[in-house]
Amino acid sequence: MNELLNATHDPQLRSWVASANGAGTDFPIQNLPFATYSQGPQGARKIGVAIGDQVLDVRATGLIETSDMNALMAQSPAAMSALRAAISQGLSEGSAQHAEWAQFLSPQDAVTLHLPCRIGDYTDFYTGIHHATTVGKLFRPDEPLLPNYKWVPIGYHGRASSIGVSGQTFHRPMGQTKGPKEDVPVLRPSHRLDYELELGVLVGQGNALGEPIAMGEAEAHAFGMVLLNDWSARDVQAWEYQPLGPFLAKNFASTISPWIVTMEALAPFRAPFTHPESDPQPLPYLDSPANRKQGGIGVALEVWLHTQAMRDAGLGPERLSQSNFLDAYWTVAQMLTHHTVNGCNLQPGDLLGTGTLSGPGPDQAGSLLELSQGGKNALTLANGETRTFLEDGDAVILRALCERNGFRRIGFGDCRGQVLAARAQAAVG
Amino acid sequence: MNELLNATHDPQLRSWVASANGAGTDFPIQNLPFATYSQGPQGARKIGVAIGDQVLDVRATGLIETSDMNALMAQSPAAMSALRAAISQGLSEGSAQHAEWAQFLSPQDAVTLHLPCRIGDYTDFYTGIHHATTVGKLFRPDEPLLPNYKWVPIGYHGRASSIGVSGQTFHRPMGQTKGPKEDVPVLRPSHRLDYELELGVLVGQGNALGEPIAMGEAEAHAFGMVLLNDWSARDVQAWEYQPLGPFLAKNFASTISPWIVTMEALAPFRAPFTHPESDPQPLPYLDSPANRKQGGIGVALEVWLHTQAMRDAGLGPERLSQSNFLDAYWTVAQMLTHHTVNGCNLQPGDLLGTGTLSGPGPDQAGSLLELSQGGKNALTLANGETRTFLEDGDAVILRALCERNGFRRIGFGDCRGQVLAARAQAAVG
Repeated sequence: MNELLNATHDPQLRSWVASANGAGTDFPIQNLPFATYSQGPQGARKIGVAIGDQVLDVRATGLIETSDMNALMAQSPAAMSALRAAISQGLSEGSAQHAEWAQFLSPQDAVTLHLPCRIGDYTDFYTGIHHATTVGKLFRPDEPLLPNYKWVPIGYHGRASSIGVSGQTFHRPMGQTKGPKEDVPVLRPSHRLDYELELGVLVGQGNALGEPIAMGEAEAHAFGMVLLNDWSARDVQAWEYQPLGPFLAKNFASTISPWIVTMEALAPFRAPFTHPESDPQPLPYLDSPANRKQGGIGVALEVWLHTQAMRDAGLGPERLSQSNFLDAYWTVAQMLTHHTVNGCNLQPGDLLGTGTLSGPGPDQAGSLLELSQGGKNALTLANGETRTFLEDGDAVILRALCERNGFRRIGFGDCRGQVLAARAQAAVG
Repeated sequence: MNELLNATHDPQLRSWVASANGAGTDFPIQNLPFATYSQGPQGARKIGVAIGDQVLDVRATGLIETSDMNALMAQSPAAMSALRAAISQGLSEGSAQHAEWAQFLSPQDAVTLHLPCRIGDYTDFYTGIHHATTVGKLFRPDEPLLPNYKWVPIGYHGRASSIGVSGQTFHRPMGQTKGPKEDVPVLRPSHRLDYELELGVLVGQGNALGEPIAMGEAEAHAFGMVLLNDWSARDVQAWEYQPLGPFLAKNFASTISPWIVTMEALAPFRAPFTHPESDPQPLPYLDSPANRKQGGIGVALEVWLHTQAMRDAGLGPERLSQSNFLDAYWTVAQMLTHHTVNGCNLQPGDLLGTGTLSGPGPDQAGSLLELSQGGKNALTLANGETRTFLEDGDAVILRALCERNGFRRIGFGDCRGQVLAARAQAAVG
């Protein structure tokens, strides 16, 4: 048993909110993720905690005084842990708060879920080694992984302004692309539009500029995790990305799930984390006993596709792939520590993406670029449709679950986004 | 004469603030740049306008109701132009406001200047073609400019949290670097620390996600310009930057000047802008008659170095190079339009760096990487010191001036930053 566990993780714990006790819920009392919600799109923003199919107005309980998630995120892990214990206690069967708190619940499907916090800066890492290898092979068959990959937690800065919450829709982006047989580039709608299956770490306490976060302190700066779809226009990316990296290929939209699953809720699913012995071992600043012992987190990930034709036929979405965060090459602590080793300051609410989380198998790929081998082999869906890349009307749903024998299963809720047709070209002329 | 000019640009205009009429000031009445300042570091933030060596409390005049620069930046160009006209009128010799407004002045050297606005997202472009060519030669002698350079205004996302205002100091960053003769990388202080001479465009009115800004509208979204020093650790950059671009090599600090020189103040210095006939011409979405007629802006740029030894000897700083924004390959309008062509949303206060602005001559380089030919040839300074890259204690000062016959010269004020010694390694262990 790991020392991160406490009474809130007890699998026997049941809530007086009946829907939290069902086998299928993502949000049993052992989870308690945070979101920002309102009654109606224009209502006042509140901090909520999911319990079954309900959301609890946390400020109404008197346990917190703020309605601003970023302010909550800046609290110490000890304060957050005390809050979690109090919420868990109040929502438990037989709690003295039952009658009072029942007034503070709203059905999740009756409220509006917003971006959970203000994201000051968004960084995207590249920890999915199977993704990096498969994509690298498409560009560099002889050297799929660059020499720095196993030493440096590779990352780059993304766009914060275009991050939306699950339910986001966006127009297929226009962009300069140049086909292999074309002499000059053309401005047109991307025809190699893709999703990327990622997890995101939301930063809690920040660090001052010039003050790195050591490995031993790193997880105290992580508030929790969300799902992240880093939509990507592969044709735009191929033409623009050298020498400074992806830009317009990525910044037209990114979608995260609304519920922040706290690091404490993820404690039962921690796992040992080491690089293969034949690989370079982490430099000392990226190594710690705790990271080796429990730096990994078992999060099972899924991508589902819901096309317009499926919806028209009354069909549900189809699962395209499954993977697990355990297959990533760097941990949450390593991302945080590497990011700040040069003195860079992180702030509450900053988002750190993991990069695309593909597994080792060809059916475990977290993007269509990989599943279709660079667009060469179309996927055939159960209803007969085929896909190399995304079509207009396609909705992509990311899901994540944590399961372990002896513990209650928890989930992340859906991260859904949908592609709209490109805007008429005149609008950008 | 161009149609952007009005009475505020009249070179005969004089202010009742005597220091604004001196030949040497950056801030004559024809400039009127905005800053955020306070009386003492902890005082309430105010919006100020520079006039000579004074700063005017704009809200105190009754002309605006906000103290929040981002709110001001969201105003329409027409509203901003009316504000400029009213400030110009009130500060002019013989103005009826003279006695009243004199109470709203503070000496600039008695107030604290802050970051002028909240910078939500920071994008850095790469419009300095001479910089791109010189740096490209160091890495790729056969192909200094990549095939996309003359088609795509190359850009990438930078770090907003570590942007500071002139006067910023920062520790020499630690980072993974790997020398050419080393088998494995080592964490150590960067020993190839550099500056980059840039201008920054601060966004005024934003655009909604999914709604591109066409060339004809682009400049209406630019509030003004500042100087920008994009400090760079070249050894960290060389090891980390593939395949996703610069990250820790750049995000430890970036410094901007406090005064936002408005686009309207820059109007007299506009110039025709076209690519050489032998080059690819801009795709239609990056082209407009107005851009060809006056897309350029003549801004003379300078880099000055002030070492610890110079300060100890009572010597002033030494100028290292001069260049001009007219030598950039893309205009402000092209940066704004390209950034949003995919639907990416810009917000008031966003910062768009131009990239390093080097001129065609070897002494017009905007970085030490170029001036020292990749560190091979040290510069000898007038006091006998030499430099390939920056040493601890070095202060770098960027300056910018706009001059044209028949107009009053305006300047940007200093953008100064200073390198401190690296933190003791134990602090990051």
